[in-house]
Amino acid sequence: MKTSAALSGIFVPNIVPYDDHGKINEEELRRIIRWLGEKGVTGYYPNGSMGEFIRLSYEERKRVLKIVVEEAGGRPILAGAAEPNVDLVLEMCKYCADLGCRAVSITGPYYYKLTQESIETYFRELAAKSPIDIVIYNIPAFANEITVPVLKRLALDCPRIIGTKDTSRDMPRFQTVLHEIKSQRPEFSVLIGWEELLCPTLFMGGDGGTLSSAGVAPEIIMKLYNEARAGNWDEAKRIQYRLLDIFSLMVNAPNFPEGFRAGYELRGFKPGRARFPLSDRELATVDTMRSRLACILADEGFSEAASSCRRPAIPAGEIRPADVEAIVRSVLTRLQA
Amino acid sequence: MKTSAALSGIFVPNIVPYDDHGKINEEELRRIIRWLGEKGVTGYYPNGSMGEFIRLSYEERKRVLKIVVEEAGGRPILAGAAEPNVDLVLEMCKYCADLGCRAVSITGPYYYKLTQESIETYFRELAAKSPIDIVIYNIPAFANEITVPVLKRLALDCPRIIGTKDTSRDMPRFQTVLHEIKSQRPEFSVLIGWEELLCPTLFMGGDGGTLSSAGVAPEIIMKLYNEARAGNWDEAKRIQYRLLDIFSLMVNAPNFPEGFRAGYELRGFKPGRARFPLSDRELATVDTMRSRLACILADEGFSEAASSCRRPAIPAGEIRPADVEAIVRSVLTRLQA
Amino acid sequence: MKTSAALSGIFVPNIVPYDDHGKINEEELRRIIRWLGEKGVTGYYPNGSMGEFIRLSYEERKRVLKIVVEEAGGRPILAGAAEPNVDLVLEMCKYCADLGCRAVSITGPYYYKLTQESIETYFRELAAKSPIDIVIYNIPAFANEITVPVLKRLALDCPRIIGTKDTSRDMPRFQTVLHEIKSQRPEFSVLIGWEELLCPTLFMGGDGGTLSSAGVAPEIIMKLYNEARAGNWDEAKRIQYRLLDIFSLMVNAPNFPEGFRAGYELRGFKPGRARFPLSDRELATVDTMRSRLACILADEGFSEAASSCRRPAIPAGEIRPADVEAIVRSVLTRLQA
Amino acid sequence: MKTSAALSGIFVPNIVPYDDHGKINEEELRRIIRWLGEKGVTGYYPNGSMGEFIRLSYEERKRVLKIVVEEAGGRPILAGAAEPNVDLVLEMCKYCADLGCRAVSITGPYYYKLTQESIETYFRELAAKSPIDIVIYNIPAFANEITVPVLKRLALDCPRIIGTKDTSRDMPRFQTVLHEIKSQRPEFSVLIGWEELLCPTLFMGGDGGTLSSAGVAPEIIMKLYNEARAGNWDEAKRIQYRLLDIFSLMVNAPNFPEGFRAGYELRGFKPGRARFPLSDRELATVDTMRSRLACILADEGFSEAASSCRRPAIPAGEIRPADVEAIVRSVLTRLQA
Repeated sequence: MKTSAALSGIFVPNIVPYDDHGKINEEELRRIIRWLGEKGVTGYYPNGSMGEFIRLSYEERKRVLKIVVEEAGGRPILAGAAEPNVDLVLEMCKYCADLGCRAVSITGPYYYKLTQESIETYFRELAAKSPIDIVIYNIPAFANEITVPVLKRLALDCPRIIGTKDTSRDMPRFQTVLHEIKSQRPEFSVLIGWEELLCPTLFMGGDGGTLSSAGVAPEIIMKLYNEARAGNWDEAKRIQYRLLDIFSLMVNAPNFPEGFRAGYELRGFKPGRARFPLSDRELATVDTMRSRLACILADEGFSEAASSCRRPAIPAGEIRPADVEAIVRSVLTRLQA
Repeated sequence: MKTSAALSGIFVPNIVPYDDHGKINEEELRRIIRWLGEKGVTGYYPNGSMGEFIRLSYEERKRVLKIVVEEAGGRPILAGAAEPNVDLVLEMCKYCADLGCRAVSITGPYYYKLTQESIETYFRELAAKSPIDIVIYNIPAFANEITVPVLKRLALDCPRIIGTKDTSRDMPRFQTVLHEIKSQRPEFSVLIGWEELLCPTLFMGGDGGTLSSAGVAPEIIMKLYNEARAGNWDEAKRIQYRLLDIFSLMVNAPNFPEGFRAGYELRGFKPGRARFPLSDRELATVDTMRSRLACILADEGFSEAASSCRRPAIPAGEIRPADVEAIVRSVLTRLQA
Repeated sequence: MKTSAALSGIFVPNIVPYDDHGKINEEELRRIIRWLGEKGVTGYYPNGSMGEFIRLSYEERKRVLKIVVEEAGGRPILAGAAEPNVDLVLEMCKYCADLGCRAVSITGPYYYKLTQESIETYFRELAAKSPIDIVIYNIPAFANEITVPVLKRLALDCPRIIGTKDTSRDMPRFQTVLHEIKSQRPEFSVLIGWEELLCPTLFMGGDGGTLSSAGVAPEIIMKLYNEARAGNWDEAKRIQYRLLDIFSLMVNAPNFPEGFRAGYELRGFKPGRARFPLSDRELATVDTMRSRLACILADEGFSEAASSCRRPAIPAGEIRPADVEAIVRSVLTRLQA
Repeated sequence: MKTSAALSGIFVPNIVPYDDHGKINEEELRRIIRWLGEKGVTGYYPNGSMGEFIRLSYEERKRVLKIVVEEAGGRPILAGAAEPNVDLVLEMCKYCADLGCRAVSITGPYYYKLTQESIETYFRELAAKSPIDIVIYNIPAFANEITVPVLKRLALDCPRIIGTKDTSRDMPRFQTVLHEIKSQRPEFSVLIGWEELLCPTLFMGGDGGTLSSAGVAPEIIMKLYNEARAGNWDEAKRIQYRLLDIFSLMVNAPNFPEGFRAGYELRGFKPGRARFPLSDRELATVDTMRSRLACILADEGFSEAASSCRRPAIPAGEIRPADVEAIVRSVLTRLQA
């Protein structure tokens, strides 16, 4: 077992901006990466769920990664490498290693439901052959879960597996990982992938996070992280609760990561149209959400968002679809009588 | 809205001990309640999931409650009142009020899957008619969930509804309740019902908990709670991690609340056979678990558990059913050849 | 193993009508049971999910059963006996036996999540002690599932367990039960509890069903059953598809069994208010549903329903809540501008 | 709407055989396709879940398709085209059209959880732009479900969408699709993708199926289909129940489609190692399964499987892991005493 320090801090999972033809807008991507660096983020996390890795071609994923490396200014990179079969994962691992990334992050396999034994075998094979350190990415909403007993055996047996990123919303699981794995291998990195749990997991002993909101509000996430690291827990908690409103708006917008892409737009970037269509009604919902988010971001002091803030005379939140439907049905009933 | 302080502290959900004929062992129940009082618990929580309320008759639930009141020594009582229809819930509310309980706790309805609108209507009707304060008990694994928007409307509209107990394991939900409800109604009590989250929820602003383990190890739970209240977070965290091992053994035993009943036995009580049968193999599993739990409790200084601690020469945890099966299959294969 | 014929036919799970004070309307219940007998149903199924067994007191369940027996005119009765603990189940079994019921039906336990081993032990204990034949009732949406391997062991080991009722909507499971159990024990009764699958399960070898719709449209269900038994499969299929519309309206109304209670009303009975409240908006939804159901029932020749049929000028189904909401939001937006 | 006949019959989803280096074994694939043609299957279904489409590269999927077309002998081809974004799906659609395929089959998107509105928008966009007919493939275990209301709107609005394949195991859903969609558009094809439901869905009005077992036992599937089409329902049912045993063994083997690949091996093909690893223990489990399957296939008259059939002296099915574990634990306990 190596005795080096655990990977720690905030790694930002960037979006991929597209141009009017649906191609990657490389200049805008470069601008985003540089801007995040100026805001003081720890490192980058390209080709994650936020970066729509699954909707890019293999060549596009390599291109995104190359651009991030070029603009990273030496900050460490944790690169998504959840390719569709073992050979392709290893090919991508080699590519990441050659580019000088710090580690790769690999989800449980998606689409098929697999046994935990097979999943363990899969990660053991990757750990034995990868030329770069591996972070195991648990995101059970989208891909096969990696259970704690499997993660524990992998972590204690495989030096190449240096940490885990958890996006399961499951705080008890996170604590169990700290208690059963990190207690035995202190340099194993335990990162949270869910904004709501950043402060509680740092408090309980976590090493940091990879958080989608960090691309939209890097100032807030980094301040929370730094206050927590300095032991200023009251301030960290205060920021955590403010973060809930921002995150809630973006994560509940139709079709992740649309809400976050709207957030980038408010910070002055051109995300372009995403790679999966929304209905007209959903586009309108995102517009409404963007306007509400703009007000919160403006209140946080991000002045570039202010012009998009429209505060409704009647708060939108107080109009329930149920009420609206009842009104209209009663009108229609009278019309039909 | 009242301005009184929120209900806070640790309310212990007791088991119900039975005699050899399956009847409630009243003397043993009295002994348990008095012992818990001596250990300094805040209050009691009879007729919860731990108390097998659903396996008792209506008269038995009343009897349990009466005994707890008589032995409580004036400590506040939060009484389960999840009866099967509105009239019976209200009848039980009146009974609790007459006995001087502090409040009742009511789960979402069980068995049928109901709409959130109906569940809201149900709690509004109870809140309008109950002669005693109500705590809304969210336990989605066993009963219909009460969503946060419904809980929020109830909390802000109904003075009778003074708090919530959450047993969903869902830390983000807990934080949202604090952020969206308690921030607007500070005397609304937000209690955790899941041991693993006691320290994190106290840290983020929770008011306490109703925790099954508090009946088995009241010393540990109360120390964690008191250290947290005193701001000694490092000590609170340390206790939290020790608690994980105890809780994990008991909660993962076959058929809740069997594991916890075994824990009471180790502390010197006679729980008797529960009201739902275990297979012979499961009884053996509980025996093994009890022996392991005894060692942990003995290490915590609870000397009465020491005689039940049998430390295996080969740690049981290292024998995987998978390995065992493989060995035996290979033997059988050879026998059949 | 007995060699008697398997329990077969259609057993009707009745509702319980209430008077204005929420008490059981005994006269109306008698009227329902007699009417069903006149319609030629095979037998009765009191104290099932449809009969809100869980919202009645123990004494009320006994009273319902007694009334059904008195009005059954000798037709066989399959009585729900899913009481909250082993002793009470056995007490109810004895009561049913004394009244001359044909068998009892027992669900998997509800509320707690139990292991399959414990559930098997539970049914073995009941089978060993019950004075009356038992049908195992699988309804995984409301109570613990009983898996096929457990059911198979129970069916092959316990003469007292004479059949199963399946309300899981799971056709492959039903076929597996026929293939693995009934093939080995032909007099084991396999009944369907889900209307949509009546014709397919009879076709594949099932013995009949206990179907909520049989209380609202006994003529249709019995005709489907009788045509199937006579081998007139084209006619049986035709009726099955007509049945889908009736069932779909009732089962999708808010809060089962509200929709079915509305159906009884259309057939001339007074169900009274159910034992769980609906919101005002949900009451309106049930009203709309009742009116649409009335038209279908009138078309089927049930003339008593005709007066409640209101055919909308604009079909209600074509007004989507989404459209309605969009319209009103645009109006509000303009008002706020 | 076109008035041509609905797509009907059995379309075989082939496996992809690999050589010792993990590359596609093209000769073996050609041999499989020709053999299936000789067995009289209706058509082919390349690049489905069975064909591990998601573990192939884009170029490999095109290559598989080309080979199938070349060996199909003019039989119709329904080609999987569930590529990761709209542009790539359309590119694959054009490729399939150019090769003369009959239609493409497209699953709901996988990985991200998407709204039904977005999914509807996605399929509308594909239907508007595709140069080839589309079958909507519902497989909720692996990809986003497409609900019946969405499917209905798409089927009634989009001439390009000519049918659906359903692998949800949900018989009521299948019947609702027939009742609400096919009744309005008779040439809309409704195919089952789950072996257990082949006979019941044909009976209720389905058009055929795409069934993994059809690659292992084309004789059985085609006989069932042909007997059903000829109205010989008793024979069709008899075959259906025999099919259950074959299917159950293959579908319950670790990691779909491993069990089916083992089946191909028994019919004389060389599937090679799959593209996802199994543990050593799982490989042994597949071996045991293969041996049991060989006996059933030999009993069906497929003589090439006979040599792999090893009938155990003690039937393996009667050794429960639970029993085995109990034995070994008791031995260990005595050893440790």
